[in-house]
Amino acid sequence: MTSEKSVGSGLRECLGPHCSFLGLAVPECAFENAGAVIIPVPYDATTTYRAGTREGPRAILAASRELEPYDEETCTEAYRHGIATLEELPVVVSSPRDMLDSVRVVGAQVLRSGKLPVLLGGEHLLSLGMIEAAADHFGDLSILHLDAHADLREQYQGSPYSNACIMRHGAALAPVVQVGIRSLTAEEHEFIRAKKIPCFFAHDLHRDPSLYARVIPCLGKRVYLSIDLDVFDPAVMPSVGTPEPGGLSWYEVIDLLRAVFRERQVVGFDVMELLPVPCFAAPDFLAARLVYKLLSFFFAGAARPPC
Amino acid sequence: MTSEKSVGSGLRECLGPHCSFLGLAVPECAFENAGAVIIPVPYDATTTYRAGTREGPRAILAASRELEPYDEETCTEAYRHGIATLEELPVVVSSPRDMLDSVRVVGAQVLRSGKLPVLLGGEHLLSLGMIEAAADHFGDLSILHLDAHADLREQYQGSPYSNACIMRHGAALAPVVQVGIRSLTAEEHEFIRAKKIPCFFAHDLHRDPSLYARVIPCLGKRVYLSIDLDVFDPAVMPSVGTPEPGGLSWYEVIDLLRAVFRERQVVGFDVMELLPVPCFAAPDFLAARLVYKLLSFFFAGAARPPC
Amino acid sequence: MTSEKSVGSGLRECLGPHCSFLGLAVPECAFENAGAVIIPVPYDATTTYRAGTREGPRAILAASRELEPYDEETCTEAYRHGIATLEELPVVVSSPRDMLDSVRVVGAQVLRSGKLPVLLGGEHLLSLGMIEAAADHFGDLSILHLDAHADLREQYQGSPYSNACIMRHGAALAPVVQVGIRSLTAEEHEFIRAKKIPCFFAHDLHRDPSLYARVIPCLGKRVYLSIDLDVFDPAVMPSVGTPEPGGLSWYEVIDLLRAVFRERQVVGFDVMELLPVPCFAAPDFLAARLVYKLLSFFFAGAARPPC
Amino acid sequence: MTSEKSVGSGLRECLGPHCSFLGLAVPECAFENAGAVIIPVPYDATTTYRAGTREGPRAILAASRELEPYDEETCTEAYRHGIATLEELPVVVSSPRDMLDSVRVVGAQVLRSGKLPVLLGGEHLLSLGMIEAAADHFGDLSILHLDAHADLREQYQGSPYSNACIMRHGAALAPVVQVGIRSLTAEEHEFIRAKKIPCFFAHDLHRDPSLYARVIPCLGKRVYLSIDLDVFDPAVMPSVGTPEPGGLSWYEVIDLLRAVFRERQVVGFDVMELLPVPCFAAPDFLAARLVYKLLSFFFAGAARPPC
Amino acid sequence: MTSEKSVGSGLRECLGPHCSFLGLAVPECAFENAGAVIIPVPYDATTTYRAGTREGPRAILAASRELEPYDEETCTEAYRHGIATLEELPVVVSSPRDMLDSVRVVGAQVLRSGKLPVLLGGEHLLSLGMIEAAADHFGDLSILHLDAHADLREQYQGSPYSNACIMRHGAALAPVVQVGIRSLTAEEHEFIRAKKIPCFFAHDLHRDPSLYARVIPCLGKRVYLSIDLDVFDPAVMPSVGTPEPGGLSWYEVIDLLRAVFRERQVVGFDVMELLPVPCFAAPDFLAARLVYKLLSFFFAGAARPPC
Amino acid sequence: MTSEKSVGSGLRECLGPHCSFLGLAVPECAFENAGAVIIPVPYDATTTYRAGTREGPRAILAASRELEPYDEETCTEAYRHGIATLEELPVVVSSPRDMLDSVRVVGAQVLRSGKLPVLLGGEHLLSLGMIEAAADHFGDLSILHLDAHADLREQYQGSPYSNACIMRHGAALAPVVQVGIRSLTAEEHEFIRAKKIPCFFAHDLHRDPSLYARVIPCLGKRVYLSIDLDVFDPAVMPSVGTPEPGGLSWYEVIDLLRAVFRERQVVGFDVMELLPVPCFAAPDFLAARLVYKLLSFFFAGAARPPC
Repeated sequence: MTSEKSVGSGLRECLGPHCSFLGLAVPECAFENAGAVIIPVPYDATTTYRAGTREGPRAILAASRELEPYDEETCTEAYRHGIATLEELPVVVSSPRDMLDSVRVVGAQVLRSGKLPVLLGGEHLLSLGMIEAAADHFGDLSILHLDAHADLREQYQGSPYSNACIMRHGAALAPVVQVGIRSLTAEEHEFIRAKKIPCFFAHDLHRDPSLYARVIPCLGKRVYLSIDLDVFDPAVMPSVGTPEPGGLSWYEVIDLLRAVFRERQVVGFDVMELLPVPCFAAPDFLAARLVYKLLSFFFAGAARPPC
Repeated sequence: MTSEKSVGSGLRECLGPHCSFLGLAVPECAFENAGAVIIPVPYDATTTYRAGTREGPRAILAASRELEPYDEETCTEAYRHGIATLEELPVVVSSPRDMLDSVRVVGAQVLRSGKLPVLLGGEHLLSLGMIEAAADHFGDLSILHLDAHADLREQYQGSPYSNACIMRHGAALAPVVQVGIRSLTAEEHEFIRAKKIPCFFAHDLHRDPSLYARVIPCLGKRVYLSIDLDVFDPAVMPSVGTPEPGGLSWYEVIDLLRAVFRERQVVGFDVMELLPVPCFAAPDFLAARLVYKLLSFFFAGAARPPC
Repeated sequence: MTSEKSVGSGLRECLGPHCSFLGLAVPECAFENAGAVIIPVPYDATTTYRAGTREGPRAILAASRELEPYDEETCTEAYRHGIATLEELPVVVSSPRDMLDSVRVVGAQVLRSGKLPVLLGGEHLLSLGMIEAAADHFGDLSILHLDAHADLREQYQGSPYSNACIMRHGAALAPVVQVGIRSLTAEEHEFIRAKKIPCFFAHDLHRDPSLYARVIPCLGKRVYLSIDLDVFDPAVMPSVGTPEPGGLSWYEVIDLLRAVFRERQVVGFDVMELLPVPCFAAPDFLAARLVYKLLSFFFAGAARPPC
Repeated sequence: MTSEKSVGSGLRECLGPHCSFLGLAVPECAFENAGAVIIPVPYDATTTYRAGTREGPRAILAASRELEPYDEETCTEAYRHGIATLEELPVVVSSPRDMLDSVRVVGAQVLRSGKLPVLLGGEHLLSLGMIEAAADHFGDLSILHLDAHADLREQYQGSPYSNACIMRHGAALAPVVQVGIRSLTAEEHEFIRAKKIPCFFAHDLHRDPSLYARVIPCLGKRVYLSIDLDVFDPAVMPSVGTPEPGGLSWYEVIDLLRAVFRERQVVGFDVMELLPVPCFAAPDFLAARLVYKLLSFFFAGAARPPC
Repeated sequence: MTSEKSVGSGLRECLGPHCSFLGLAVPECAFENAGAVIIPVPYDATTTYRAGTREGPRAILAASRELEPYDEETCTEAYRHGIATLEELPVVVSSPRDMLDSVRVVGAQVLRSGKLPVLLGGEHLLSLGMIEAAADHFGDLSILHLDAHADLREQYQGSPYSNACIMRHGAALAPVVQVGIRSLTAEEHEFIRAKKIPCFFAHDLHRDPSLYARVIPCLGKRVYLSIDLDVFDPAVMPSVGTPEPGGLSWYEVIDLLRAVFRERQVVGFDVMELLPVPCFAAPDFLAARLVYKLLSFFFAGAARPPC
Repeated sequence: MTSEKSVGSGLRECLGPHCSFLGLAVPECAFENAGAVIIPVPYDATTTYRAGTREGPRAILAASRELEPYDEETCTEAYRHGIATLEELPVVVSSPRDMLDSVRVVGAQVLRSGKLPVLLGGEHLLSLGMIEAAADHFGDLSILHLDAHADLREQYQGSPYSNACIMRHGAALAPVVQVGIRSLTAEEHEFIRAKKIPCFFAHDLHRDPSLYARVIPCLGKRVYLSIDLDVFDPAVMPSVGTPEPGGLSWYEVIDLLRAVFRERQVVGFDVMELLPVPCFAAPDFLAARLVYKLLSFFFAGAARPPC
């Protein structure tokens, strides 16, 4: 009778317009009917600069409730496929690895249910839990990593579990393709070269936009998509911890991802590192719209004719 | 199966920790079991200076979810008596009088159910709807009005339905006692004198704190309590539209109201005009704590021995 | 002898650099000499999300006082044609329709005086009052509507007078051309198709910039121009209530409107929905510059050779 | 015909509710009828910590327009005695001494006209210009200085004209009495002792409130009153450059100054150093209310019976 | 030759006005000469509501650089006794217990050097590391705990190392006296009664200020002083995570602690949980002034006659 | 032994990660080894609109400490060439000319040492001191001026030393080339034509990007580069005093300056007028990244092959 029905061991769903993505009501927000599942995780314990990405999931959900549920580009109402929203995953403070394990367990549950998991951060570290779950679930997985930073360090602050290291772990689990990178260390650059990681630097994409077309061929059939919002230019996405000038525009990201969803099978995605700026909601709207746009691409499918 | 169970014609309750006062879960937040009912109304259409009291109810509810549910002064857990939270009342834009009617209808329903209505504003105009409902329901009613402003104008901006006029209407329905006033016109002062309204000015209360003891004898047996948060000193409550220096302290208000709850029958109350300041949550906490403190007084009752 | 000389029934002008657009002094800001008249209306009663567009007109005027009065593109000083600024139109709280009537009356007076009316909002609903006045005054009128939202609903919040509905009314008065749309309902999309409204979606304009050239041929000889500032991309205009990514750039809007002013007769325009963000003045400057740029286009006329 | 009528060499008045104190209209805001003259000076060039007191005068005037023009304590409407507001004094950047000279000239003009000058800062340095004018105009003058800081340094940043030094200059022109001090150097403390300056430290006033009664006997018949707003406790006045805990309350300041106005002849006063905090208007209201309260005391006079 | 001279295994001092408390230069800020040592720890990993106390130490140090180094109450310049400032302690993300161990090690080093350790947080959890070090170093220790919250839970978020639990640990190491409490659970209240912890509730102190005199007799000879800044009333200290109305004033805290420093031997203290509010520096100044006031009390000693 | 070693008459360097650009430690931040010298000047006395560019240098340095020291475009670590950071230049309040003299003296010292001076403002006026020093030091100098404003007035606010006038002085010392201009007076436009100053207006560069290639041929061999950050579009650089729409993008500026550094000898540069917006750090990062990007270009040299 409560608003948070249990939907598995430890999973509880949010029912009703006060807490669901888009402000959906039953039946569209019910877990059992849902094609996709939003997983908000308000955790930012290992960030070392500005705090606050823990506020990200709430800000995205709040902005989502102001969106029109119709997508004029695909002429679809994706919410009709069902979008469940889980309660915020409880924060575990004992260690970052413990928090990751919690994400991985939830991710695995959602994947086993045949629904699309959509992680909302929170700090980028959390994506590793979803990547682990996805790599476990699918034998063949590619990771598409959109970010300003390479996140390929071996360790940081004396720990291997940090934002700065997640794709080092990820690369050990599945092939990684990086897009939008414009901040890394000499060592990370060396690692990219040594491991032949396809890395599309932001300044190269700016100089030669035709490079975008080379991203998808680097990806396998099944793709996990991890988006650190700082991949966007700070003009449209200033609400991140370490904004780097020279990033991607809304349409550059959307055009790339439309093609990815059309030509590959996306098995899960995340939108991470929103650090809401007080009184400045435009970036929160962008993040919410991005999530819904990707869901529209997902549900529209490859076969759909343009409207 | 949704989180907003209908509890009467048009009333819908919020179930679960995401939307209820204190973050209560069922059964403590269920309407049918509740001794008190929170009614949030995000409306601020007739304010003419700074906008934003529409954000007040959400800010109070958010802060309430961080409160401890125990009151160390009364040694009670008031929430065990049941505190339901209604969905935000839908805003009606056709006219202020239409909005007032909507509040009055809800207030009447809650009063008929024998529960204590607690209105969260939103602009002070809304209180008039509750006062109308209470005056209708109870033959003999007194109004205790805590405010920096007298709100006794005949009309304002060419309309009789405005924040600046509500106690002019109120005084026609039931005897009014005013506490904390420190901003009014010469005409309002003349009206107070002509109508012999017991008005305890802030500067007099400062000069002679023993005046507080004279408030309760002015009140009848049944009291509706209307609190404009600007009655508090701006030191503790800067988050209002027109803050006036020289207001009441936390303990001055609490000590007065503890006595009111002990010596009179409070049949409803409201906490109005919170205009949340970005990044500055202390006043939101004060408002939330005030609501719970008054509920603790209400449920503790007069008979309870001190712990 | 006061600073607000009456200039007709109910109209009062602001004289002097403290309150006029650009900080103009007499004679450039005197109503009788003015070619254009700024009409600020600080009203936002029917917005339902964030409040605050009532602060818009003041923010635009404040920023305008920091502008250079010279336009380097047209090599003109448009203010020499006279730009009067009216006092803020008094807010009417009795009902939205009453407020609209007040705008319509002022608009009609300015139009009868042969001057160009320039409405500064405030919420977009107000534009309808100006459109009504213009449609009344001119037999043949086209409406050019720049917005992120279609605003074509039949009603909203139980009322036909809402931001979300104004172009539904507008379309009944004169043919409407829409530019920059990227948020609407399935029903509104259907209405656009059914009524064959020329609607230039933002994503189409992005994909094919040559579409801009097709806007003007859709317009009749006389044009009323209504600009909801959210037509701009949030990168340059985050200070709106519901920012939508993927909007138009400064030069895209300016290049389109330069052509409109050159090839059509603009009989009035409005710049609406600025919701100023504290400490973040760049969007206020954009709005002020936009108004002056359009006035420069208006006064420069079609015949003027480039400097 | 402009809104800023010239009222002497270089003085220009603001006419009309958009720019005058309290939003007064003619005749109450006309210079020729005025008993008091507000002089706003938006200058903060020698402050070395946070910038922004230049915004102070505008913030005080804006808040003043929301005040009721009636004072319920004195039962008066002080504005009926006429309160003119001058245009902001133009900032002179050539040197601090040049700026001071400009203030002194204006102060002298107002004093010669027999009206009460009321300076609104801006930085505290400016008070010295008024003090020089007043000391020049009146043979016998006392200075009452309310401040958290002693401002008695010999020089600061290599210049004798700095906020930190003004009472060193002031003390050479007229006897100074200091109230509320709680931040000074050992050298300043030594100077106070050596010169036997009556200095009422905040911590002493806290410990023994009866000390307030000793302030007035230290003052001569004619008093210039200089208020650095940081004399107030930061609880009610956080909007200053260097807030110091342990300051005076609203009623402590008002009670002291009521007595000063009753028992001495105040020949001018200033309210300085407001550094407005974005979105946090309560301190601006306090400053505006303080100005009007002091004007109410001034015009009510000693003889008036309490209402 | 660097600015951070190593002063022991892992300890590095900050030299020079850019980073030291009060902006001290050598020799006053040199570790070897110092009587007291400031230990800033920018850690807030286990807080679950608003993030940001990691910014606290930097804000306190920045504000301290604007303080006068003279204390007018004690007529002393405490900095002449030497106040060293350590570099920010590196954050350890592996687990809260690991972070605590790091604090404990530093605390022990400072205590062994015979200097007074002064911890600046950061979240209150960190105090436990200092308490462990002090309890280790001194056989007989009392803990004086100023806080709005009892912090006596057994565990929180599934971990015993959390802000909400630290005095449960502390009470096992040394007798605890609590002052200012006004938020706790029924279970914590029961624990206080069962363990006979002297707990001075805020509402009791308000009702009967003579209770303050009973605090010191509850303390042993050697005292570790732990201050959660939310013990202050939010009027003066709104910059905390969970502000509770009804707290202590500046003079109430200072008067109590002056007596503690005079009548007991304070062996270390901490000032925790500052969560700086943007553009609102007054609370940062209070925290900085508090630290220096306590150092003035410490160095002035019991014997010193009043100036 | 202090952290600020004296490095000449009056120059003091900041040593250590707390205060140096990029957070460099010795030996990379030592003056004697440095190829470039950062000169922060927190001065904004002659700005007349919003105050606060005095906070600019600190904000740039703070952001710089979060940058990766590697530049992925040039594959270099420019810091290895040594980047010293001077202490903030003491503010001189006696007159703007005195402040300029102080900058000129420091600039001359750095130039004589053969290092590259990099001035961080603070208001744009300060650049004139560096230009004077550079024009003095080098017989043949060109000035490349990136700005939204022409800054070519003869005087402003009765003084020739103002932001609005600096290039009038500059043009008398060396040929000036202007890029990005989009705000000026008719008189300034006339001056540009009369003096045949190569001025690349923003709207022309937008219309015809090939114009960028014409900038460098206008420059002599040795170039002093002065950047007012408002040359950027407000989308990426809103943190300036008078933001003007229609500015340059990150890549437009970087592409131009890469070529300048490759084809000319830059002898010094400045990055001016950052007015940090609270809670909005992206523009501070842009400014810091810009400084480091230009240093990377400087040290990479013309000969270096692309990585």
